Amino acid sequence: MAEGEVTVIVAYQVNAEDVDRFMDAWEKAQAHLKKQKGFVSTTLYRAESANPYFRFVNVGCWQDADHFRAATQNSKFQEASGRLAPYPLYASVYEVAQT
Amino acid sequence: MAEGEVTVIVAYQVNAEDVDRFMDAWEKAQAHLKKQKGFVSTTLYRAESANPYFRFVNVGCWQDADHFRAATQNSKFQEASGRLAPYPLYASVYEVAQT
Repeated sequence: MAEGEVTVIVAYQVNAEDVDRFMDAWEKAQAHLKKQKGFVSTTLYRAESANPYFRFVNVGCWQDADHFRAATQNSKFQEASGRLAPYPLYASVYEVAQT
Repeated sequence: MAEGEVTVIVAYQVNAEDVDRFMDAWEKAQAHLKKQKGFVSTTLYRAESANPYFRFVNVGCWQDADHFRAATQNSKFQEASGRLAPYPLYASVYEVAQT
């Protein structure tokens, strides 16, 4: 990661029967975010086990926290990500503490 | 990530006053894991906000899930990671679903 970049980690609770629906919704939201200023990269991880607490975790990288907030705190993002609403999530902005 | 590698994501709940104690405990556990067969890399992320749900998230990479399990399911790891016990955590083995 380059100097000043931040990592946005979002952990999602998704039932097994909702995986395809979740993936479609995630892709729609990401397609929007990828076009926003300050977006660097994103990786969606899927749990290997059958019944994990968090089936999906998204680790995204942004140039800085302000760009991330500007990209997500507006009605266009709310519309693009609306189909993710059914899935409980925990999200925060992170910095690297240690490797 | 190379073919076959897996990602281990662990989200920790840590109170603000416990940050230094948690970091010490995490470093001890990681010092042990880094010497185990199959370890590839690890990154500990720390939340930027004052009161996040998960203050720390660890994203680790292993050559495969079997190596990770062998490294963590034994008494030596239990000893090395014992001081992490006070912190509630959610851990799973993940594969990359989408980038």
